[in-house]
Amino acid sequence: MSLATVTPLGPLQKHADHATPLVRDAWYVAGLSREFSRALLPRTLLGARVVLYRKQDGSIVALHDRCRHRSFPLSKGKLEGDKVVCGYHGMVYNAEGRCEHVPALPNTPGNIRVDSYPVVEKAPLVWIWMGDRAKADPAAIPDTSWLSDPEWATVGDCFPIRTNYVAMHENLLDQTHFSFLHAGAVGTPEWATAPMDVTERDDGVYLRRELKNSPAPGIYAEPMKLGDRPVDRLSDAGYVGPGLHVAHATISVPEPENGERAAFRVNIAHVITPETQSTIHYWWFNSRDFALDDADISALFHAASSSAYMEDVEALAWISDIVESEPPGYREMSFRSDRPGLLMRQSLQRRADAEMEKRRA
Amino acid sequence: MSLATVTPLGPLQKHADHATPLVRDAWYVAGLSREFSRALLPRTLLGARVVLYRKQDGSIVALHDRCRHRSFPLSKGKLEGDKVVCGYHGMVYNAEGRCEHVPALPNTPGNIRVDSYPVVEKAPLVWIWMGDRAKADPAAIPDTSWLSDPEWATVGDCFPIRTNYVAMHENLLDQTHFSFLHAGAVGTPEWATAPMDVTERDDGVYLRRELKNSPAPGIYAEPMKLGDRPVDRLSDAGYVGPGLHVAHATISVPEPENGERAAFRVNIAHVITPETQSTIHYWWFNSRDFALDDADISALFHAASSSAYMEDVEALAWISDIVESEPPGYREMSFRSDRPGLLMRQSLQRRADAEMEKRRA
Amino acid sequence: MSLATVTPLGPLQKHADHATPLVRDAWYVAGLSREFSRALLPRTLLGARVVLYRKQDGSIVALHDRCRHRSFPLSKGKLEGDKVVCGYHGMVYNAEGRCEHVPALPNTPGNIRVDSYPVVEKAPLVWIWMGDRAKADPAAIPDTSWLSDPEWATVGDCFPIRTNYVAMHENLLDQTHFSFLHAGAVGTPEWATAPMDVTERDDGVYLRRELKNSPAPGIYAEPMKLGDRPVDRLSDAGYVGPGLHVAHATISVPEPENGERAAFRVNIAHVITPETQSTIHYWWFNSRDFALDDADISALFHAASSSAYMEDVEALAWISDIVESEPPGYREMSFRSDRPGLLMRQSLQRRADAEMEKRRA
Repeated sequence: MSLATVTPLGPLQKHADHATPLVRDAWYVAGLSREFSRALLPRTLLGARVVLYRKQDGSIVALHDRCRHRSFPLSKGKLEGDKVVCGYHGMVYNAEGRCEHVPALPNTPGNIRVDSYPVVEKAPLVWIWMGDRAKADPAAIPDTSWLSDPEWATVGDCFPIRTNYVAMHENLLDQTHFSFLHAGAVGTPEWATAPMDVTERDDGVYLRRELKNSPAPGIYAEPMKLGDRPVDRLSDAGYVGPGLHVAHATISVPEPENGERAAFRVNIAHVITPETQSTIHYWWFNSRDFALDDADISALFHAASSSAYMEDVEALAWISDIVESEPPGYREMSFRSDRPGLLMRQSLQRRADAEMEKRRA
Repeated sequence: MSLATVTPLGPLQKHADHATPLVRDAWYVAGLSREFSRALLPRTLLGARVVLYRKQDGSIVALHDRCRHRSFPLSKGKLEGDKVVCGYHGMVYNAEGRCEHVPALPNTPGNIRVDSYPVVEKAPLVWIWMGDRAKADPAAIPDTSWLSDPEWATVGDCFPIRTNYVAMHENLLDQTHFSFLHAGAVGTPEWATAPMDVTERDDGVYLRRELKNSPAPGIYAEPMKLGDRPVDRLSDAGYVGPGLHVAHATISVPEPENGERAAFRVNIAHVITPETQSTIHYWWFNSRDFALDDADISALFHAASSSAYMEDVEALAWISDIVESEPPGYREMSFRSDRPGLLMRQSLQRRADAEMEKRRA
Repeated sequence: MSLATVTPLGPLQKHADHATPLVRDAWYVAGLSREFSRALLPRTLLGARVVLYRKQDGSIVALHDRCRHRSFPLSKGKLEGDKVVCGYHGMVYNAEGRCEHVPALPNTPGNIRVDSYPVVEKAPLVWIWMGDRAKADPAAIPDTSWLSDPEWATVGDCFPIRTNYVAMHENLLDQTHFSFLHAGAVGTPEWATAPMDVTERDDGVYLRRELKNSPAPGIYAEPMKLGDRPVDRLSDAGYVGPGLHVAHATISVPEPENGERAAFRVNIAHVITPETQSTIHYWWFNSRDFALDDADISALFHAASSSAYMEDVEALAWISDIVESEPPGYREMSFRSDRPGLLMRQSLQRRADAEMEKRRA
């Protein structure tokens, strides 16, 4: 699926698509803190089988879920202390993936190991690095600290999607589909035409929109009890790496009345981890800095978000069906309005190219 | 699956088989008139996703079911007047497939279009042309006018089949399997050995058989109330292009008694449209020029035809299973009795070759 | 899946794995005597569709289940005497696969035949040869005569497995997994460390183990009513060709008391026939020379064996999932303890290479 660009981005730029090798040198979310325990959890991440578990000290281990000897899934074995015992021949791997014992041999060779992957827990998220280990810098994990901040109330869910991660990221960076795919849920006519600042930074692409003195959409007006009074809206959203898209929204009441709240903030985190080349793990989180203990408002945000995101889930799966069933070589067209997504796709393409070049070297 | 010919057709002739590219420069049936409405109907035809709908004037439109922008299925969008609005970003396509509006852009580029396919309705059939548009001549649509003629009563049905269209056409041109696959249903011993004239014309292959003074088979004797009295039978059948096989049968009563009907006619249309390389849409129609309003006789023809054609459906699917699961390179043998099918396969092969050569040029 | 050998076997040896072409010049079991009758039985063996039936004299016929004319499955036709009549066009094949009648032709060509496969019944097993017919020597069928010997009582079952036959054979030759995969069922600690003699003969690989004066495992102690008294154990097991693994066990009571039995023997036959490159038919038989008519002991052996072998079935399917879903090129490691399996894999590789070379020649 090459790209017939009609944008000022230049025809020489290559844009990642569903067939581009997955970027591996990046932090991705392996799952939620509460999913990991002293049980061996198997999960496919970036096409690899991974087994994850907590050590006795609570830290999380991720190993290739495939014994080096006869490819038995380690997740079907058992934990002994912090070590995994293969269920086939009893080989014992420590938490770094080094084999410490081969029961059938008098002495254990020193060179047996399964891949292990750096893991960093930033509750409620658990991040994993599946690429070049030397580059795994925990400082590069994008900030999602509000998810564990008691000043914020969060609802969320997990929707697996039959789509490549590029299409999902492009969908999130694209606000021009709101009025159509999500006609019922998000956006007002004014918001749809509000100007947008697009900024490319390092490996992120950010959108900033501002709209003054305009009614809030239902999804905000109702929980914030704004009715139809005009508010000022500010949104900062963006692709912050292959594994995450974050949106920060602020709704300000221009002239708050006595004791009334002057501003409401909502952060949305879209967490995306390729399962395979054509499927993703997808978790979303909707966080607010108001009505923290109001279960009704939590339920309202969960229902509204689920319903909108399910429209994306369906749309991306339909597109996947077409892209995979029709002959290859189809040329999609892009427009100036696709610029945020195209910048992201160029970035992913550059990273994928660099990784491939390095592997060849 | 090449062909070890033991026929006089010569080993140098190539015969289309399940792996030969589908002939595209031909009229195929996209569906039945009653299937098309103001709803957007998705259907896979010749491996392409197509969306079909009726314009306000009742005429039928067929477009590639894939938005040029991000491959969203147009059939998941909506109709506005005679135009299709994509459900993802609101792009508006007119009935010719030209994009007239891109909501996210100030001006709509002039060069955006999805493929559109010529459609001609000859109720109850709707024909489509998926090949080179310049060659789409409605005059070339084969005649099936009796299907809408009040002088004929028609029953029919739709059976999807897991088979390539070549095998289905060969099955229809082959009357030597009647006594075996359809041992219970069709044919009498005399009919099985009646001589057959085979004629190749343009791109059709026709069979003519005549049998005098012989009892009619049950499928005819019963509705025609002939008992076991001898009749004269004439059958003209043939492949009339990649999308259609038609059989015309006449049963004549040599010496009709007072007021008795002297001849009964039955036309059978087998409508075949490749869905993919290995599946077909198949519609059949059984039409008669007698007992037009007799629901019992309609039911009898429907039941007898369904039961016989389901035997073909099963047989072709079994064969498909074998051809697709066993290693390629198997050489089927052909006999003089296969001549009608082989002539058809040579014709399909010549057309496929010519189309491939043209695409390469 | 190549092999990073750390054994003394040398890195230049090639070892058959899941991708190595199946060895065809070998006797394999097509099924159990009781499965074959005057009905046409279809079965996929070594990737080929085969139809099997008994002639009127009781002998068993195996033909390629694909009519030479239009690939119809002969198993969907019918038997007439000892001949198969194709259900599509009535072609009649005799028990040698030669076509004796083509109803549509005045004279039947002499050169039409479907492949037929030599079959030898050694009840309860029916052996088939799918390779070079000239090499099909019934004398080469491995001995399993105790299965029909009234001095032995046999229980058994059939478990299809999603695995390549190489992995199954390696699993059977490998006794180092007993204490782990079958921790509950087989083996005592002493047995696990008993020395093992490995012998390669012709195309078989044999293991011999002896253990004196040690308690029998539950699976033997209970039916043999040994309690925990020490016994002498002798086991002779081995890969006796691509289609069979046999184990002979003898439990001797060192000082039998008055009238007490001095020795108990158990033979286990593991019958393995590739269905396709990635699936096998698997039958197992547990035979004993004692308590021949004791239904309780039969039930005990059936239950204990089923439960242990199901652990292998699951393990091999899990491994298959991993091997087939992850990128190719993974290098498994082997150890000195894998020597029996590696010898078998070298043997299979040599045979596969020789067959491929011969086909090329």
